[in-house]
Amino acid sequence: MSFNRNLSEKAQQIEEILKEYLPEEKGFQKTVLEAMNYSFLAGGKRLRPMIMQEAYRSFLKCSGNEAGGTKVIYPFMAAIEMIHTYSLIHDDLPAMDDDDYRRGRKTNHVVYGEAMAILAGDGLLNFAYETAIKAFALCRDDTDRLRVSKALEILAGKAGVYGMVGGQCVDVEAEKKGLTISAEQMAFIDENKTAALIEASLMIGMVLAGASDEILQEAERCGSNIGIAFQIRDDILDIEGDESVLGKPVGSDEKNEKVTYVSYYGLEKAKEKVEELSEEAERILQEIAGEDSFLIPLTNWLIDREK
Amino acid sequence: MSFNRNLSEKAQQIEEILKEYLPEEKGFQKTVLEAMNYSFLAGGKRLRPMIMQEAYRSFLKCSGNEAGGTKVIYPFMAAIEMIHTYSLIHDDLPAMDDDDYRRGRKTNHVVYGEAMAILAGDGLLNFAYETAIKAFALCRDDTDRLRVSKALEILAGKAGVYGMVGGQCVDVEAEKKGLTISAEQMAFIDENKTAALIEASLMIGMVLAGASDEILQEAERCGSNIGIAFQIRDDILDIEGDESVLGKPVGSDEKNEKVTYVSYYGLEKAKEKVEELSEEAERILQEIAGEDSFLIPLTNWLIDREK
Repeated sequence: MSFNRNLSEKAQQIEEILKEYLPEEKGFQKTVLEAMNYSFLAGGKRLRPMIMQEAYRSFLKCSGNEAGGTKVIYPFMAAIEMIHTYSLIHDDLPAMDDDDYRRGRKTNHVVYGEAMAILAGDGLLNFAYETAIKAFALCRDDTDRLRVSKALEILAGKAGVYGMVGGQCVDVEAEKKGLTISAEQMAFIDENKTAALIEASLMIGMVLAGASDEILQEAERCGSNIGIAFQIRDDILDIEGDESVLGKPVGSDEKNEKVTYVSYYGLEKAKEKVEELSEEAERILQEIAGEDSFLIPLTNWLIDREK
Repeated sequence: MSFNRNLSEKAQQIEEILKEYLPEEKGFQKTVLEAMNYSFLAGGKRLRPMIMQEAYRSFLKCSGNEAGGTKVIYPFMAAIEMIHTYSLIHDDLPAMDDDDYRRGRKTNHVVYGEAMAILAGDGLLNFAYETAIKAFALCRDDTDRLRVSKALEILAGKAGVYGMVGGQCVDVEAEKKGLTISAEQMAFIDENKTAALIEASLMIGMVLAGASDEILQEAERCGSNIGIAFQIRDDILDIEGDESVLGKPVGSDEKNEKVTYVSYYGLEKAKEKVEELSEEAERILQEIAGEDSFLIPLTNWLIDREK
């Protein structure tokens, strides 16, 4: 099967899984449920749940337990996408990036108003945990339950102030400071704002399949490489890309005076960095996920993508 | 020991427990950590953690296991207070209630700006789960772990769109509609915006001490009564109270055109309702927490309080 066809079939399956975990739009609080689903169903590559599921499958296969998979990964796939989605809703708010469009659709606060968009974000973040906790009900034994509690720990750690929210804090402050921020602050933003959830996706997939702490450390490093490479590639596309392919105005980072790896180090160094990070990521994946893991072409596609 | 002295000693102990779970204000993301702690340490009665701890103690005693307590309850006490605090930060935002002061101090967004206040709220909500999950490390056996997973489920359920966030959604919409909202919507707001976290506090204390599903149902009903009575009492004080005792301008709900039980049904009916709810709450507490549980005078104090 061609990579593209394989990718689109997998994406379709993930869409079906995610839909199972959506809240029903009913009750007095219908509006906030609608607002949550509006953004959750706004499309996107579903990259994080896909990485998570492939990490789970690959590690089961690597450890000779290919047929031992269960649905325990599903609630976590939905949870990480909910966390990603809430972060976009809050990021787009007038007090943050003040964006009116995302993926070609009006942003949450433009449709539902600011107050409801804040609540929809809060609702999705909390619902991510409500959903992930459902994995306990899918456990076969105490070993499974222990893995689920470890997966919860990873999820919460990477999503919070020592992960994504921490990165967003420094990003918000960097916007005031422009290019006077340090290289370390620059790296901290990419590592936490973008890479943390990719790390979580790889690590959760692996831990639910039974990976050891040593493997998890490798997965974390690999996720970091993929996430940062993905972010720098995004920044490069913002400068070089074709507007019609990209779906957002080219140069929008520049217009917003966003500090990116590219504005910090220049285009050439940025491309070298992407190359370096993706080579290391592939090397680690071959080791912990196996040479025939779908994660390898998936990572290459992500990093070489044109949109 | 007098009730007041007992209460203040307990509150002091809780303050010490909560402090153990605060994030350290360091690293590149220092600002968001400071903003989180600013609101978390802004005082307040610590009502929810206190109810939780007393429910835990009372149920252990009731079930003849007085000496069997562990610290497993501590992370949950901190978590519920973090969730309460995040909800206040987001509630005070310009897009929501637009309040500049709370408990006599400037609100989070006035001190740190709107973007950071949104992130501080997100950070606290997520940190609540990071913290609660730490309870797994305090478990002695699989029975404890099962109780912790049930407690997590209760916490997430009561804090989210089928609990507090759901109540806030209807509250936000009610402000636009004023007294044209239905009696059911009115009840839904009090039940979810205020009572849900009180229910969670009682239920989590009980489930960690080993309570059955039947007891948990009783605890839920009792928490609902206490929470709603507490809210209506608050609305009554807003009309009748002494500004210097209350710490906020009397009649501020009226000024903000907030729909409350009092504006909906009138003062007399509101007082009758408080009486009725608190009597039932006390009856249930005697049954599930024991006649000498501190929860009984605590509830009476809460509902009869002048501020």
